[in-house]
Parts: sequence; structure tokens; C-alpha cells
Amino acid sequence: MRPSRLGLSSVDAVLTWIDAAARRLERENAPLRDAVGRVLTDDIRAERPIPACDSAALDGFAVPAHQTLGASAYNPLALPLIGVAADDALPAGMDAVVPLEHGEPDEAGRIVVVEALAPGGNVDRQGTVVAAGALLISAGTLLGPRHIGILAAAGCAQVSVVRRPRVRILIADPTRSGAVDSNGPMLSGLVERDSGIVSQHISVDRSRSALADALTAGGSDIVLLVGGTGPGRDDEAAPALTAAGELAIHGVALRPGETMGLGRTASGVPVVLLQGSPPACLWSYELFAGRVIRQLGGRDPGLPYRSRMMTTTRKIVSSIGVTEICPVRCRLEGRAEPIASFAEIGLMAAVNADGFVIVPETSEGYPAGTSVNVHLYDDR
Amino acid sequence: MRPSRLGLSSVDAVLTWIDAAARRLERENAPLRDAVGRVLTDDIRAERPIPACDSAALDGFAVPAHQTLGASAYNPLALPLIGVAADDALPAGMDAVVPLEHGEPDEAGRIVVVEALAPGGNVDRQGTVVAAGALLISAGTLLGPRHIGILAAAGCAQVSVVRRPRVRILIADPTRSGAVDSNGPMLSGLVERDSGIVSQHISVDRSRSALADALTAGGSDIVLLVGGTGPGRDDEAAPALTAAGELAIHGVALRPGETMGLGRTASGVPVVLLQGSPPACLWSYELFAGRVIRQLGGRDPGLPYRSRMMTTTRKIVSSIGVTEICPVRCRLEGRAEPIASFAEIGLMAAVNADGFVIVPETSEGYPAGTSVNVHLYDDR
Repeated sequence: MRPSRLGLSSVDAVLTWIDAAARRLERENAPLRDAVGRVLTDDIRAERPIPACDSAALDGFAVPAHQTLGASAYNPLALPLIGVAADDALPAGMDAVVPLEHGEPDEAGRIVVVEALAPGGNVDRQGTVVAAGALLISAGTLLGPRHIGILAAAGCAQVSVVRRPRVRILIADPTRSGAVDSNGPMLSGLVERDSGIVSQHISVDRSRSALADALTAGGSDIVLLVGGTGPGRDDEAAPALTAAGELAIHGVALRPGETMGLGRTASGVPVVLLQGSPPACLWSYELFAGRVIRQLGGRDPGLPYRSRMMTTTRKIVSSIGVTEICPVRCRLEGRAEPIASFAEIGLMAAVNADGFVIVPETSEGYPAGTSVNVHLYDDR
Repeated sequence: MRPSRLGLSSVDAVLTWIDAAARRLERENAPLRDAVGRVLTDDIRAERPIPACDSAALDGFAVPAHQTLGASAYNPLALPLIGVAADDALPAGMDAVVPLEHGEPDEAGRIVVVEALAPGGNVDRQGTVVAAGALLISAGTLLGPRHIGILAAAGCAQVSVVRRPRVRILIADPTRSGAVDSNGPMLSGLVERDSGIVSQHISVDRSRSALADALTAGGSDIVLLVGGTGPGRDDEAAPALTAAGELAIHGVALRPGETMGLGRTASGVPVVLLQGSPPACLWSYELFAGRVIRQLGGRDPGLPYRSRMMTTTRKIVSSIGVTEICPVRCRLEGRAEPIASFAEIGLMAAVNADGFVIVPETSEGYPAGTSVNVHLYDDR
């Protein structure tokens, strides 16, 4: 491939445009049971202390501690039997709990204590977990199951979270080649991973007017238009976006991904033009479209992969002036082995890879033995 | 807390029971669009080569390479104009592609070539990505979006994946304390994280007969019964499981989590008895119930957290004979700072933590400066 460098934006310039254009969506209330994976919009403070009152720390028998003074194996004391389970409120007048296995009920239905307890023994004092008014979870937290547990304990039935971005996926109908649509199903999976909702997923005739009409139709927070992004006469994605609003960027120094486009409709909805070629579509999504969606949803806008420094086992070659995505295998601890590229084997490069290295446009690659930052798929 | 050690199984013994009892569920077909996050049951091979025939590697003009011999800026050659887009099949007789920006259409509607091409230039040969019959994706792969793309390209409309486990969550009604149910919403989130489907989520009267009846009702691949797991008189979860089938394990040397139970109904459905106390419920789920679900679903049965060796900033104290879960904060690179325990502040320990260390029962903890394996929440 020897594409023209003319007019290609740098990856950084595209990210800067996205970060200025894509604002976090508004809040909505979500019932607690649907709140896992959502992003909290506000700090949540405890309205009341947890525990709300002094409570049993374990299953056993509630006692007034002062009545156990002097109890021992040689001086067992019988007290009224008041059974409590862990987390039960302590009955009035009780301030300690004899563990189940240390208290023996007698025939008179009393509990026999053989050890003295201090006041507060085996008791969770009111507010020990959280005092009233204390911060439970900070705004911006991505809620996991453990957060849901504490929110339920604090009596929250619903929480205010960032609305999930609605995403329209438009496939510019590839009538001329009759090729299968590899991109639509892949994009649906990517959008859902980034917590977007695919609100529409349709094929559109690839004429400029049909594409412009489809771009203009509302009902979503972002539109992904797939196919027809090239500079050819049949490639109407960019002219259609110009007609429907604003084409801010067309062409980026990214491989795969050079003919990606970016802009917005006349009503301000962000539009990403993704390539029909699956590897280019994948990487334009990962770096750009996904970033818009993640940002709309209030999530970390960066790539959703963990990364680790690893040592290259062989040379990685890249071109100056183009950011390149280089697939690697990581079968040996701490080592990244470059494998066949996206240019050579398309999406199979991603399937064969354990992760990838992003070689910036200022670099022509790395010799063997270089320490590089590897983004890991983590799904093996 | 001074619970009796009597009769507690080791964590390893419980894991061994689970690994013998929980078998991967059967296969089902999933449409490609719903296959992200599912586990493939069989190797998938390419039925036909990819590309299916020689195809354009980029947008441009298809030419017979031999007719470009001798072309240069001083000797431009005019050829019939045959436009192709990337991934288009090459028309018959053509074996190279002039990139769009290197070919200039002339007034006669022909394409002017100023550079010679070798046969195969800018062409993706049939089968370059994958030969017919080659392995595309191995059995056992957890399908990500990139896999979906290559499956679509290979013409798969659906794939055979492991069925998702159906999970019934029964909450033993905590009528005696009137406490809120922190566990149900948290468990729903955990089950979904592990790719289970919550098929039922109900409260059940905590009498033995009501619980036994509820356990016996069918319609799921596993039952989680929450509450009433202790050894007290009102704790009927274990006797109910004995009545409904088999109580294989009751009590485990895990903190939090000691009164967890495990067994199966008379018809062989695994049952996990989880504690009403939220931290105990959380950890019995993470280590045991979640493992059953992950295993039923064909996933990695281990904890679904990445782990990393880090250095303790302070002493971690644990008891010999009990596996303990110790929350840590990881605000400094490579350092794990022990924070207030689950015994002290319940679920807030998990909320405050960036991860946790599992101290095995053979250990009484670690001095400051020890290298320990930290499981990371990774959601900040």
C-alpha cells in the first residue's frame, strides 16, 4: 500500500477533536439491580449510619455485659436466653453477644455463660461501617457488584448514573461487491462493550443523498456510517456528511484506518465514518468511534485494554508519519512477539494476537529487545 | 469473632468438590450478533479461502500488470479504466491494482499509468488471510468482537457456544430483623458478570419445609440460597438442603465466609448456601458459587480478576487455619497497602479497596515489604 500522505490528520489531532466535541451525556435514574457497569454522576453519602444501630457481629445470644462479670468454667452464670443472628439489632439493654458455640442453653431455657464479656463484645457499633453523612462512593465510579451491595445496605433503591449512548450503525450497502458484512456484527459487540446501546442497525443505499438522509435522521447520540469512506467516485460517505452537517476530519495517519472520517450532523450529533475494510473499521472504531462513545457514557475514554511493558522478541517495523497497530503474541512471560500484520492477513491478525503495540507516527519501529507497551486482549 | 474451627472444610477441599461436581453445560447455537462473550464449543475452520478470490488491496484501478511494463512519468500509458474498491474481487484478466492517487483518468475515459506494476501488485491473493480448511478460532475461545468479525467474513451466521447457566436466587426472608436485602442486587450483578442468567429471584419463608420446597423446584442449572446458613436454631438452610438432596459441605475455613454450604438437590442441581451477612455472601460467591457458574458456562473457573505481584507497605495479619481475604489499596505503583478489614467495616472494605490479597490457611500473614499476589478490581 502506498497511500497518499496528503491531508491526513495525525492521530493526536483526531483525539483532540473528539475530546473537545464529545461531552458526557445527561444523568438518568437506574434501579439498583440495573446499575452494575454504569457510571455514578454524584457522590453518594450515607443518609444514616451503617449499622443503623448497635448490631450482633455474629450469631449468638445477646447479654448485658455487666451481668457476665465473673463468669468462668468454674462459675457458669445463667442469663435470659435472647438469640440473635449476625447483623440483627441488639435488643434494648443488651451490649454484648455470646457466640453461639460459647453459650449453652440450660433446661430452664436460659443461656449458660462461662466467660465474661466486655461491653461491645461481638457487637458492631452503630456507624462502625459508615457514619451518617460519610462518603460511600464517589461521583464517576464505574459501579461493580460490590458497590451495589453497599448501596443496597445504605437504603438506595436507585442511583443517578450517566445515560448510555444510543448508537445508530448505518452500513453503506456494498451492492457492487456483494461482500458479506463483517463489520456490523463486530461493531455491535464493540458498542456493547463500551456500554452503548445499538438503537438502529440498517443498510443504506450508498448514494450521497440516501446516506445524507440517513445521517440526518435523529434518535441517537452518535452515528457510525460504515463503508464508502475512500476518495473514489463511488465513495459518498464524506460528501454525504458534508451535506448533512460538517465533515471535520477525513483521513488520518493511522494504519489500518487511513480513510476514517469524523464530523457531526447539522443538529450536532457526532458522526464517525468507518471503513468497509474490516481491519480499518476495527481500528477506527477502537481509537476514535469507541472513544466518542466511552466519553459520551462518562467512562474512561482510553482504550479498554490493560497494558503492560514487554520486551520485543523481534524487530517491529513501522513507517514514519503513520501510527501503526502491530499485533503481537505474548506466549512467553514478559515477551511480545510480532506476528503477521493487518495489512497481510486482515482481521486474522487480531484473532491470532494476544495484544497489540501502537507505534506512534514519530517512530519507525523498534529493534528486537526493546521494551514496549503492549495492550492485552486478556480473553484467553 | 471466635468461631469454632470444628468441622470447617479447607478452601481447597471445597474447590475440589466443585471441580468434580460442576460440568460444562451443553452447546447451543447463537446468532453471530449475540455471540460476544460466549465460549466456543468447537474449532471453527474456514469453509472457503479468505479472500475467496484475488481482490483489490486498496481503492484504485484494476489492470493487467504486463500492460504497465515500461510506464513512467516520461512514458505514460493509457489503459481501460476499471475502478475497484478495496476488497472487491479483481475482474477477469486483471492481476494488479493502480492506487487511486497514482492513476489519472484521461479525457477519453482511460486511466493513465506512470509506473509499472508487478503481477499481484496491490492485490490480496485468494486465501492469503486464511486458506480453505485452516483453523480460524479454537474451541474454548471466549469470543470477542474481533472474533465475530472474522466469523462473519468466513460466512458463519451462527456459532455453537456453551449454554449460559440459569441461576435461581432464593433469599431466605429475613423477617426477624427486617433488614434490607443487600445481597440480592449484588448477586445479580455478580451472576451476570460471570455470564449466568438470573432466571428467578425471590424471597422464601425461612422455614425448613419452605426452603426445601424452593430448592427442589426445577428450572435452573444452579441454586443460590441466601441466609440462614449459620448453626443456630433459626438457621434452616443446611437442614433444608439435606432434606432436598445432599448437603456435601457446611462450613469452610474462609473469612469472611465461614458458614457457606454446598451440595445438590435430589435431581443433581448444584446448590450453594450463601450467608445473609453481605461480606460473607460476597466472598462465598466469589470463591465458590461463582466458580460453579463459571465452570458450568465453560469459562475460566478462577477468580475473574487480573493479579499482580506487589509489595506490602504494612503488615498483613491473618489466622493460621483460615483463608482470609484482605483488602488493599494500590495508590502507589507496585505497592499494596492493607486497609480496614471486612470484619471491621463490612462491604465498605471492598468499596474502599483497589484489590485484595488471599492469605492461605497455612499462613499467619506477611510482614511489611513482602511480595504478595494482589487481585485487582480494575474498575477505577
